[in-house]
Amino acid sequence: MLVNLTTSATYEGLFGDPELAALLDGKSEIGAMLEVERALARVQGRLGVIPEAAAEGIDEHLACIDLEPEDLRQRTAADGVPVPALLDIVRACIPEDAADWLHWGATSQDIADTAMVLQLRACLDLLEGRLAGVIDDLKAKSHTHEDLVMAARTRGQVATPITFGLKLARWAQPLIDAEAALPAVRVHALRVQFGGAAGANTAIAPYGPSISETLAAELDLADSPPWHTARGGILEAAGWLASVVAGLSKFGSDLILLGRSEIGEVRAGDGGGSSTMPQKANPVAAEAVFTLGRLATSLHGGLLAAAAPAEERDGAAWALEWILLPQLLLACGAALRHARALADSLIPNPEAMRRTLDAQPGSMAEAASFALARECSRSEAKALVRAALSAPEGFAAALAEKVPAVDWDSVLDPASVVPASHAEAERIWATRR
Amino acid sequence: MLVNLTTSATYEGLFGDPELAALLDGKSEIGAMLEVERALARVQGRLGVIPEAAAEGIDEHLACIDLEPEDLRQRTAADGVPVPALLDIVRACIPEDAADWLHWGATSQDIADTAMVLQLRACLDLLEGRLAGVIDDLKAKSHTHEDLVMAARTRGQVATPITFGLKLARWAQPLIDAEAALPAVRVHALRVQFGGAAGANTAIAPYGPSISETLAAELDLADSPPWHTARGGILEAAGWLASVVAGLSKFGSDLILLGRSEIGEVRAGDGGGSSTMPQKANPVAAEAVFTLGRLATSLHGGLLAAAAPAEERDGAAWALEWILLPQLLLACGAALRHARALADSLIPNPEAMRRTLDAQPGSMAEAASFALARECSRSEAKALVRAALSAPEGFAAALAEKVPAVDWDSVLDPASVVPASHAEAERIWATRR
Amino acid sequence: MLVNLTTSATYEGLFGDPELAALLDGKSEIGAMLEVERALARVQGRLGVIPEAAAEGIDEHLACIDLEPEDLRQRTAADGVPVPALLDIVRACIPEDAADWLHWGATSQDIADTAMVLQLRACLDLLEGRLAGVIDDLKAKSHTHEDLVMAARTRGQVATPITFGLKLARWAQPLIDAEAALPAVRVHALRVQFGGAAGANTAIAPYGPSISETLAAELDLADSPPWHTARGGILEAAGWLASVVAGLSKFGSDLILLGRSEIGEVRAGDGGGSSTMPQKANPVAAEAVFTLGRLATSLHGGLLAAAAPAEERDGAAWALEWILLPQLLLACGAALRHARALADSLIPNPEAMRRTLDAQPGSMAEAASFALARECSRSEAKALVRAALSAPEGFAAALAEKVPAVDWDSVLDPASVVPASHAEAERIWATRR
Amino acid sequence: MLVNLTTSATYEGLFGDPELAALLDGKSEIGAMLEVERALARVQGRLGVIPEAAAEGIDEHLACIDLEPEDLRQRTAADGVPVPALLDIVRACIPEDAADWLHWGATSQDIADTAMVLQLRACLDLLEGRLAGVIDDLKAKSHTHEDLVMAARTRGQVATPITFGLKLARWAQPLIDAEAALPAVRVHALRVQFGGAAGANTAIAPYGPSISETLAAELDLADSPPWHTARGGILEAAGWLASVVAGLSKFGSDLILLGRSEIGEVRAGDGGGSSTMPQKANPVAAEAVFTLGRLATSLHGGLLAAAAPAEERDGAAWALEWILLPQLLLACGAALRHARALADSLIPNPEAMRRTLDAQPGSMAEAASFALARECSRSEAKALVRAALSAPEGFAAALAEKVPAVDWDSVLDPASVVPASHAEAERIWATRR
Repeated sequence: MLVNLTTSATYEGLFGDPELAALLDGKSEIGAMLEVERALARVQGRLGVIPEAAAEGIDEHLACIDLEPEDLRQRTAADGVPVPALLDIVRACIPEDAADWLHWGATSQDIADTAMVLQLRACLDLLEGRLAGVIDDLKAKSHTHEDLVMAARTRGQVATPITFGLKLARWAQPLIDAEAALPAVRVHALRVQFGGAAGANTAIAPYGPSISETLAAELDLADSPPWHTARGGILEAAGWLASVVAGLSKFGSDLILLGRSEIGEVRAGDGGGSSTMPQKANPVAAEAVFTLGRLATSLHGGLLAAAAPAEERDGAAWALEWILLPQLLLACGAALRHARALADSLIPNPEAMRRTLDAQPGSMAEAASFALARECSRSEAKALVRAALSAPEGFAAALAEKVPAVDWDSVLDPASVVPASHAEAERIWATRR
Repeated sequence: MLVNLTTSATYEGLFGDPELAALLDGKSEIGAMLEVERALARVQGRLGVIPEAAAEGIDEHLACIDLEPEDLRQRTAADGVPVPALLDIVRACIPEDAADWLHWGATSQDIADTAMVLQLRACLDLLEGRLAGVIDDLKAKSHTHEDLVMAARTRGQVATPITFGLKLARWAQPLIDAEAALPAVRVHALRVQFGGAAGANTAIAPYGPSISETLAAELDLADSPPWHTARGGILEAAGWLASVVAGLSKFGSDLILLGRSEIGEVRAGDGGGSSTMPQKANPVAAEAVFTLGRLATSLHGGLLAAAAPAEERDGAAWALEWILLPQLLLACGAALRHARALADSLIPNPEAMRRTLDAQPGSMAEAASFALARECSRSEAKALVRAALSAPEGFAAALAEKVPAVDWDSVLDPASVVPASHAEAERIWATRR
Repeated sequence: MLVNLTTSATYEGLFGDPELAALLDGKSEIGAMLEVERALARVQGRLGVIPEAAAEGIDEHLACIDLEPEDLRQRTAADGVPVPALLDIVRACIPEDAADWLHWGATSQDIADTAMVLQLRACLDLLEGRLAGVIDDLKAKSHTHEDLVMAARTRGQVATPITFGLKLARWAQPLIDAEAALPAVRVHALRVQFGGAAGANTAIAPYGPSISETLAAELDLADSPPWHTARGGILEAAGWLASVVAGLSKFGSDLILLGRSEIGEVRAGDGGGSSTMPQKANPVAAEAVFTLGRLATSLHGGLLAAAAPAEERDGAAWALEWILLPQLLLACGAALRHARALADSLIPNPEAMRRTLDAQPGSMAEAASFALARECSRSEAKALVRAALSAPEGFAAALAEKVPAVDWDSVLDPASVVPASHAEAERIWATRR
Repeated sequence: MLVNLTTSATYEGLFGDPELAALLDGKSEIGAMLEVERALARVQGRLGVIPEAAAEGIDEHLACIDLEPEDLRQRTAADGVPVPALLDIVRACIPEDAADWLHWGATSQDIADTAMVLQLRACLDLLEGRLAGVIDDLKAKSHTHEDLVMAARTRGQVATPITFGLKLARWAQPLIDAEAALPAVRVHALRVQFGGAAGANTAIAPYGPSISETLAAELDLADSPPWHTARGGILEAAGWLASVVAGLSKFGSDLILLGRSEIGEVRAGDGGGSSTMPQKANPVAAEAVFTLGRLATSLHGGLLAAAAPAEERDGAAWALEWILLPQLLLACGAALRHARALADSLIPNPEAMRRTLDAQPGSMAEAASFALARECSRSEAKALVRAALSAPEGFAAALAEKVPAVDWDSVLDPASVVPASHAEAERIWATRR
């Protein structure tokens, strides 16, 4: 039991994500805050809101400042937000005539929120690439296995056959939906924050709106009225992360089921050994994806609670985002990392798939019913099929005896599902732009 | 303590919503399922998948069927879904040659999901109207009070002044964002479901995709590959509902604060009496909005858990949607109902607002600092302001004595924030299409 | 999609609980509130706090009052709590000299909370009986099947064998823990509430504490300082319900897995048919238990949010309990109802169990390793076992050839696990008092 | 935005807890796992299950082993649990005849769970001390201020007066309940885990139960049947942590309200400055407590989801505990740290308290009603009070004029609530053992 598994050395491979963690470490946060202060100064200098020389001084000096997270510890505890600590240190490092104009008209939340958005953007870029990678891998595998027939399962029961190619497309389906939703999420979440003390930009009037607009352009973010208390963009990003992880979680859970000892139809990942049972191959990565999915659900709930901040700014609700959003990003990143490895390594076992279908002649019962539909009434067809399923001579033989007119070899061949499955898989791939 | 407050007679006015509940009662659900079966038959008749006469027979007979929820009780308990019970009853009521072609190639989830989508659409229509009404009310009030100055509060402390007009716009801001997001939510959530037993439409091949497309058009829904296991659309609708309720919850909480006995700056709603304290006016409606907001957060978490269904169809995860989504709709509907009444009835108390500002000269401290910024260095300005705040002669007098060059009457007049506040309010209203 | 599944006619058999619902309907709530008002009057009459004749008048008249929930609707919406509405109606029905002393010194929350506790007690009584029934059923089955060997599964993989008797005991284990915890839950949750307007009983001083104590005795509840803002008892009851449902959920999920088509080791419940696939037997009741488990998790989260009410009384947080606690009770009740039916009906399939073990010789790998441990080093033992598992001549033959000294027939006999499994099962049953 | 605020240097003072974090770092976890392996060897040696010399060898060598979390990284990622990695490294460091008997009959989860319990015990010890400290501080303050009268607030409205001493006792009330519940939590949660591969101790039969019992005694834990799938003890600990944090969260929220600029009745903590408004004193620590309370609610939900593990052991559900429980401990620890500082530093402002009461004569309306009750009927009394509240001559004067018989000076003196408030406070303190 570790204080934080997601950043622990021991568990890094399971629940961590070093690449994403680097975008979210203390130095990155400081870097993002300094980047915002610099851009603000440049923009205000350009608009004539602060002296141009001061703007240049701020921009140049802040580019060289090297701060450690430890430097912010004490003041952050007192202030409840790291921006004042950062400003104090920075002001002490630069000439007073520049320092006077640093952070001009801004409030801590303007800097912290915009910096958060910059970090969020970097994370989304990384996640987007991984998401595309998982979908690409699933698509390639789907085409490879477009003719491989296996049992579908509904409500834990073997149902009609489908192709493994369609199964792979179904795993991709929620991820494709998420991929398509990302551009809108970016527009809504990646917004500049500039509102001053109470979100009304009164101290700096009438320059607030133009500073906001120019700063947005400078940082390549969307412009927005101050959103100190309208957290819908963050909520949308969180919802997107949760939906990605939910999609991955379904993939992971299905792999755990298909990799069970009694089923063994798909093998994916390396599989952890057991300390006492040498024959076992635990579905470690698939389990980790599932664990991260449940974790994401928990974290997301807290972000909803943060989405109704009090009055003009709310220190208590706001800080929930700082704690929960990065963990949600990390959970999504780690789940995508595992999913990519699983999608890449997964290997079907055609014999096992065939074995399941052979053991369950009822998987063709629906096909038989439909073939009989033009021969007799539906209720008669159902009765015939039901009787044949328990006939001692076997399902196919019983049907052939009762209704010889139907070409049962063809109707009962599981491979008959290939064209329809293929068509459905292609419908899914066609939703990807 | 009642088994269900949201549908109880006692609490209907607090947490219920009769108008929305009528769209979600047992008869409506049966009606929606029958509507889907009828549309399916018409479409399949038109495409030649089933005999045209059978299609007509189904369409006509089902139009006249009158079922009670009680009729479905027993079989639903056995089957885990009401569709088979419905079909059995319906088949017994119509001629066998039509009955044989009823529900052709469909699985229970196709009907149940499409019916759910029809009900969801009706609910969203209702909610959209209410949402627009709340925004309209807030906008009208915002313009009425565009010059009324009050204290902003950040982190529970009186901050700089803003206008009540801006405050009203801020309450609308998350709702405007939600309003703008709704069309995309509709596209993603209001999709036809037609996939057959395992989502591959194998029994009815090769007609699956064309039935799906035509059925979508018939019901005025979006077409989609089967989404038995890709619940992103439902999740997006749930996320939208949660974000609306979060926005309303902020409005409600702020009203509770502003209506406190010690503040009394805004009065909204009727206010419940106390059984023992005749002078009290409890903020009943605002509290109800807050309660519904917390409820929505709880319910939403369960829907996330439902978004990773197992294999081709998952009875356990699916049913969570049946339980949680209607309650989430109802929570949103009831919260909007209260919010509309609050927005409509709210009345500011300008004297109380003025009193707060007068009692907190520090609310103009920022303005003073900024006015001093062109006279002296920032640290000097801050020191001057700090000293003036505790000066025995009063803030304004102390500043005037120390720095007579500044027009303090104008700088320290709270009304000076009106133009900037107005501009920010207009930025918010401009985001509404 | 229905506004409330738990009370709908359609879904009653799946997610409802008529017996529990009757304890939680509008009439029961009114009855509980009237019972508290009557007991309060009797106690206050006895203590001389109100005139004895008034106390008698209240007690007698309230015994005969017949109110409908509809009668409370309008005022409850205005007041945010049904007690004032109830009092107004009641006062109008009884002589004024009695009416004057009704509800003397009490606040609405005193009545509503104590009434809630009375309803909670009735529900817990019912649930306790069901819980004991499930445990009894599992215990009886456990003894019946104490020698039946099956594969244990860890992390989705077949592990060593255990007995089905132990499996049944494990399903009971969390339920036995819950049963043992219930008496303490009762003590903490079933407390009288009597605090007056602000929880300090100032209006009725100095009688507050003695009224509270006597009222507790009158209603057979624990006495307590007013707990308007200390909701730990309710939270404990909610946590208990959630833990029961979690235990049942594990039982349900395991049954879904063991009842899968490819496994088929245990059959429980009737199994729903499929509308298109006649051979399927869906695990409807087990799925419902799982669904209710996830629902309970959602609901519980909201109750935690209610456990930090503001100041002396908090209308918004409090009402969350009214909405969530009954649903949590109902979810627990319905899950217990299903669990009892499942425990009662479950039938193992010894051949399927044997087939799994035969197909997985590795399930005896650990036993082989331990048998080898006294013959060679552990690493040598593991290597030998690993080699034997992939030996063409079979696991047992390979081991016998390599290490003839061991009695492999006995070591590799799955039945060898019976004594240890039996002992562990008995350890579980021994924890039940 | 940082990958983990709770362990970041920047935010350590806000959301971290270095003392608790040290009990939960990578070295501590390794230490706990080694401690369990050593105790297991000693116990098995003593029982004759393994050679006594091997037991001594293990115990001695493991005492000296110094491992870094990094050493476990790679294998943990492959195995899904750090125990196999630990064992491999350890085995390589000790003589083979000892190494062969290391971890004899245990499964990874036996070691990991028992180690978790040891870490949990250390954390609970720390938290218990802090909890007692907060209660002690509140009690001392409560006695200091037992005569200080202030307004109670119910539903955001000023209600009758109470004493600040009672308010302090109310803040302690849920904490006292938690303190009283802790011994039972310890008994249920602090249990040894020893079940072997499938929880049946088959490999080591018939020694499983006696090893478990002796190991429990050796580690000073409770004995228990294996609880691989019965997570009620962990759930109970999590529920306890959540209830502590809920209690603290109420304290924090109340302090935020009482410290508002418009109220200012209590000042606690240092208060963070604002980067733009020099006069503000943000309630940083109280906000942090509230934030941590919401965080705990989120985390707790995930632990409920982990409480229904599949089959004999479940890698996916189990790992949720590793991630969530330490964060919940940390949230509780940090909240207690802040609460202690707040309880210690809080200072009431008697003038502000008096001012509130003076501004709200209605706060004595209930007292007036009760005083009138022996003079006239209740409805007359209420009407008189209501009229007096809006009388131009003032509340007291109006009452005196209408009903001169009552000693209004005494009835309307807020100090009249002191004895009853004091009695209620003492009832709370009396619940502390």
